[in-house]
This record gives sequence, structure tokens and C-alpha cells, in this order.
Amino acid sequence: MKLLEKIIADEGRVYPGNILKVDSFLNHQIDVSLVDRLGEELYWKYKDKNITKILTIEASGIAVACSVARNFDVPVVFAKKSQSLNIGSDVYVSRISSFTYGKEYDVTVSTDYLDKTDIVLLVDDFIAVGNAMKGLVDICNQAGAGIAGIGICIEKAFQNGGDDLRKMGYEVTSLAIIESMTEDGKITFREQEEIG
Amino acid sequence: MKLLEKIIADEGRVYPGNILKVDSFLNHQIDVSLVDRLGEELYWKYKDKNITKILTIEASGIAVACSVARNFDVPVVFAKKSQSLNIGSDVYVSRISSFTYGKEYDVTVSTDYLDKTDIVLLVDDFIAVGNAMKGLVDICNQAGAGIAGIGICIEKAFQNGGDDLRKMGYEVTSLAIIESMTEDGKITFREQEEIG
Repeated sequence: MKLLEKIIADEGRVYPGNILKVDSFLNHQIDVSLVDRLGEELYWKYKDKNITKILTIEASGIAVACSVARNFDVPVVFAKKSQSLNIGSDVYVSRISSFTYGKEYDVTVSTDYLDKTDIVLLVDDFIAVGNAMKGLVDICNQAGAGIAGIGICIEKAFQNGGDDLRKMGYEVTSLAIIESMTEDGKITFREQEEIG
Repeated sequence: MKLLEKIIADEGRVYPGNILKVDSFLNHQIDVSLVDRLGEELYWKYKDKNITKILTIEASGIAVACSVARNFDVPVVFAKKSQSLNIGSDVYVSRISSFTYGKEYDVTVSTDYLDKTDIVLLVDDFIAVGNAMKGLVDICNQAGAGIAGIGICIEKAFQNGGDDLRKMGYEVTSLAIIESMTEDGKITFREQEEIG
């Protein structure tokens, strides 16, 4: 999606350790009108798949998941990263090793909100090594839910999470795919056809 | 807001320890069309206040904050709950004692996204003892930003956070205010005039 690639090129900042900061528009400050455009784009890709739920993971996936869900008129479910006192005991749990935070954590989804009747579109703002997304896949498998596809705003291709999931047989749609980036800020995108 | 009160009465579940679970529509599964209605209602209350930013806190405030922000055509900024490797050093920090989680944590907002030129509407899904919201007020004060008001979906009045902030001089608008609730599920709301 050229619009997103341009904004990443203009506003993204590259830091040592393969870190791309896009917190001016996506995951700290949120440009809601942009996120709505991203949500529409993912809707157009999956609109004929009979999606019943959008599943994401807190926190920065929630905004784009809501924008996608509005188009489908289906609920969002967001996986929770830590066991809160407020969550019931009947949950699907998957353990995730976080590249960003350098630690392991559990994600949980209540069995009330995902089951074998669901056809799920998995959505997140970023995919790098893909551990968070693999955790969401695991949770869908535990629930017996179908996975129609995986919609991502920004894929860091050199960390292989997106391609891992494609090899597992999932249709991964990333609106911008970064093939490489250098510490002086040069970002190279994978060529893709526009969806919408 | 009678619509929200009805949904809380129909779908909310009361648990020991003054816990109200509304995770079927607000903070685990999200009914996006309902959340959009809540966002519009808060917009109508504050539409003449020259709001420049919607400030919330991850994770469950993000959905309603985006719905509010869409009406104002301003960005959302969400305070982050833990110091990520991806956040810069130039941040406002406030320490919050969590009633729900029984521990303390820091919330941070980058100095890039909040300053003295901003007029902020603070938004969250819930207010109970109000410590998270008081942390957001602290962060606005550190930034020198103006606070136009505080918009909440559900206030648990018997935990006093909303009234504490009113006594501090802030205009707190809660779309549903719970005066009391019993473990057999009876929920009593404070009488309020409709906004919209």
C-alpha cells in the first residue's frame, strides 16, 4: 500500500537492533484516519471470507483491529498479555517469547469469545519474528476456529515471521513489507500490487 | 446513557471484590458499533472545547479513544504501561498503583506527542479508584497541556475515583455511573440526563 509505505518512509525512524519506530502514527500516537484506511484495505482483501471475528493482541493491535471490524460489522476480540484478576478461569492460553521486550509472557482469550463456529481474521500492527501472531494461531487452533487469513500493517521481512506463517499455509497480507532497513534510515519495501 | 446502562444490566457480571465484568462488549470482546456510539456521545459533550488530542492508557481505553478521536479528527495518544525497548528516553512518567492488578507500574508518554499547546480530552473505558486517570492528569500537568475534561464509559461511583477528580476541578463525564452493585447481580445506576 503506497500510502503506508510513504508515511513509513517519511515518519519512521530506524534504531540499532532492527527497531523501526512508527509511534507518531501507529503505536503510541495513532492517526485514526490513516488506521481507518488500513482497516478498509484489509477488509477489501478478506471481505468474501465470511469472517465472524477479528482477533488481535493488546495493545497496539486494537486500533487497527477495530477499524477492520467496523467494515465487517463483527466484534473484535483482543488477547490479553497478562493474567488479570478480572479474567475468568476458562481461557485459551499460549506462551509467547517477545523479541521486543526480551521476555516470555502468556496471552489469554476467554473461551466465551472464540469457538469452532468462528472464522477469524487475525490482525496486528506489526509482524517481525512473528511469535505474537503464532500465539494467536495457537489460540485459534485450541478453539477449533477457522483462520481466514492474517492482516498486518507493517511486516519486517528480514525477521521472517510473515514468511514462516506463509510456509505454515496461512494467507498473510501485510500492507507494507520492509525487505531491509539501514541505521541511516534507508528503508526498502517489497514490491506488491495494491489491493483496493 | 440509557443504551449503555441497559447493556451493562443485561450482559455485565458481578464478581466478589466489587469486580464488574463487561468483557463481552467493552474490554476483551469489543462491540465496535456500540463503542462508536459511546465515542459520539463523548464527542457531543466536548465538541466545542477545541480538543487537540485524545489521551488514554493501554489497553482497553484504546478502542473508545479511537472512536472519540474520529469525531474530533484529532490523534489518539495512548500511555504505555511498561518501559519498552522501543520507547525513547524523552518521556513523561507517572507511577500508578493498580487496584485491579494489585501492583505498581509506570505509565509513559513520549514528550513528542504532548505539550503545552495541547488541549486534551482524557478517555478511558472504566474508572474505579481512579489511579490510572490521576496518572494521565499528572502526565498532562508535566506536559503543561490543558485538560478539557475526562470522558469515561463506566464509573464505579462507590470507589470514588470519579468524584475525587470532580473535587480536583475536572469535568468528568461518565456515560454510566454505578452507585452500587450486589453479588447477586443487581446494579443501581446514578440518574443522569442524556447528552445527545
